[in-house]
Amino acid sequence: MIHAPLQNDRFLRALRREPVDRTPVWLMRQAGRYLPEYRATRARAGSFLAMAKNPDLACEVTLQPLERFPLDAAILFSDILTVPDAMGLGLYFVDGEGPKFERPVRSAADIAKLAVPDMAAQLGYVTDAVALIRCELRGRVPLIGFSGSPWTLACYMVEGGGSKDFSRVKALALNDPQAMHRLLDVTTDAVIAYLDAQRIAGAQALQVFDTWGGVLSPSMYREFSLRYLERIARELPRGEGADAAPLILFGKGNGAYLEELAATGAEGVGVDWTVDLGDAARRSGGRVALQGNLDPVTLYAAPDAIRREVGHALDAYRDGNGGSRDGHVFNLGHGMSPDMDPGHVAVLVDAVHTLSAR
Amino acid sequence: MIHAPLQNDRFLRALRREPVDRTPVWLMRQAGRYLPEYRATRARAGSFLAMAKNPDLACEVTLQPLERFPLDAAILFSDILTVPDAMGLGLYFVDGEGPKFERPVRSAADIAKLAVPDMAAQLGYVTDAVALIRCELRGRVPLIGFSGSPWTLACYMVEGGGSKDFSRVKALALNDPQAMHRLLDVTTDAVIAYLDAQRIAGAQALQVFDTWGGVLSPSMYREFSLRYLERIARELPRGEGADAAPLILFGKGNGAYLEELAATGAEGVGVDWTVDLGDAARRSGGRVALQGNLDPVTLYAAPDAIRREVGHALDAYRDGNGGSRDGHVFNLGHGMSPDMDPGHVAVLVDAVHTLSAR
Repeated sequence: MIHAPLQNDRFLRALRREPVDRTPVWLMRQAGRYLPEYRATRARAGSFLAMAKNPDLACEVTLQPLERFPLDAAILFSDILTVPDAMGLGLYFVDGEGPKFERPVRSAADIAKLAVPDMAAQLGYVTDAVALIRCELRGRVPLIGFSGSPWTLACYMVEGGGSKDFSRVKALALNDPQAMHRLLDVTTDAVIAYLDAQRIAGAQALQVFDTWGGVLSPSMYREFSLRYLERIARELPRGEGADAAPLILFGKGNGAYLEELAATGAEGVGVDWTVDLGDAARRSGGRVALQGNLDPVTLYAAPDAIRREVGHALDAYRDGNGGSRDGHVFNLGHGMSPDMDPGHVAVLVDAVHTLSAR
Repeated sequence: MIHAPLQNDRFLRALRREPVDRTPVWLMRQAGRYLPEYRATRARAGSFLAMAKNPDLACEVTLQPLERFPLDAAILFSDILTVPDAMGLGLYFVDGEGPKFERPVRSAADIAKLAVPDMAAQLGYVTDAVALIRCELRGRVPLIGFSGSPWTLACYMVEGGGSKDFSRVKALALNDPQAMHRLLDVTTDAVIAYLDAQRIAGAQALQVFDTWGGVLSPSMYREFSLRYLERIARELPRGEGADAAPLILFGKGNGAYLEELAATGAEGVGVDWTVDLGDAARRSGGRVALQGNLDPVTLYAAPDAIRREVGHALDAYRDGNGGSRDGHVFNLGHGMSPDMDPGHVAVLVDAVHTLSAR
């Protein structure tokens, strides 16, 4: 397919660590409930999942934040749990409780039944949405596709939903590490196929969300999370030349593993707000672009405080990156919340562009 | 008061980094709902708070785990929020929701009204419990007193209870840092007075729980949490000679700050399970004893896995500590949960003593 030429390539240039006029910015969960127009679309759809599974509606909400704010990238509206849903676990949502699975994976026998889903048959609604969004973007900004990380998907698959302490999935990993590795292996195969299908459908960058890697001890993180992130970084096709889609590994609580993440071969590493961006830049040593990392809660503060904190994050990165702002994609350290003020988001985006102008 | 001579000083010797025959072990929240005898006492008391405010019952539950397991220290049964309660905030508990305050601190005007509580009048029930437990222990093991850290107390004082994202307290810190420092200053004065009163009443070691320091960015951690931990370490009297009560600074998510915590002057630093104990030992360089750090969830695994993980933690510490197991107090990386199996706790305690025997 012939796509409209890209008009704003700051985000992709930053991921290649090439010079840009301003630091690019997008926000995790930028399409979300804090926007009244999102709530209206969701009300029409009836539910979050109905919206995510309808390419027209997914496209509509993906584009909404771009109408309000001069963001430098769009991210596919979807859920991190589409892959296990396609594996037959039965994803559903209970209001106020987050995602759940009807058929969680609890035993080696459950794990033995898992297989890589057929992308076209089971996840065509996602690639259809990607293709539609890419078309509707008309080259304004690049489109990011994404998946949950194998460990993070395994957490939900075994726990059957969110968890306070991840006791089931950790106990399985401790008691039967071989079974856990089988689960993670098939899930990694599925994640790679899924991200590749999104790239082929039109995604121009791909992000893996390792939301729950940080709940592990270092030895378990390396064995059950990092090992599979490394395999994705190694095996995922990126495409050729100008069409190459860089890979970003985001992880909550991944600050202790930056050197290892920078050595995976991923083009970008996303970090949460508990690491100093200057330290992160020094420790990753220019091997990857860095994405982050304002504490999302900063959006609850007053505009002056938001601008000050944006400036601190931008300058910390520059100071740790040998005086250059290149190779930085500005973002929050985690996703936005429903009660955030869109006016404060405007302040943040403007502050990033203004304070980072070269 | 003349106390019975201490029969088991492994814990205090380890905190002084002196040689011991086995690595001492105690467990955060070792007196708790996972024990049927605790649930029986609590049922008699009527509520958690009634039990904590009654020195006889607090003594009873403090001693319960020592009857079951050869633990090397007892810890006062109390709550981390007694100090703000004594400041007039009105602590109460809703089943399944954790602690709450009737009168949270929301403004500079609220903060201006806060004062260090009168220890005898407001917190005499705690020092009475300490004195009674010390007596009833008859020198079997040392008694640990404790407090919440200033930042952690401020989190509950401003949020009015637990929080998912700590948006109120962080927004206050971002919008009005001077007001936040006034809150933290008076709270620090209170914590120091409170810990000193516990020591005078008979506590033989003192632990500060910085449960929520890890939710901060590094610059905010240093400004709003670490600065006040440093003041406690500097100003808190420890007592003289053989009666000296060492100070342990425990923090969830404090792994990035070990060098700074080891330089505070505290005798011990407690770490959670997201840091490798060998790295922690190398980074703290013998300046402090280290306490931790098995993932509490390990107690849900099978006995073989528990023994294996205990061995890994013990050996990691030894390898990072120049081949010596001295200076290590074994613990979990966080508190125990109500649905844990006392039989598994027995396995853990036995594994620590067996695998660490010199």
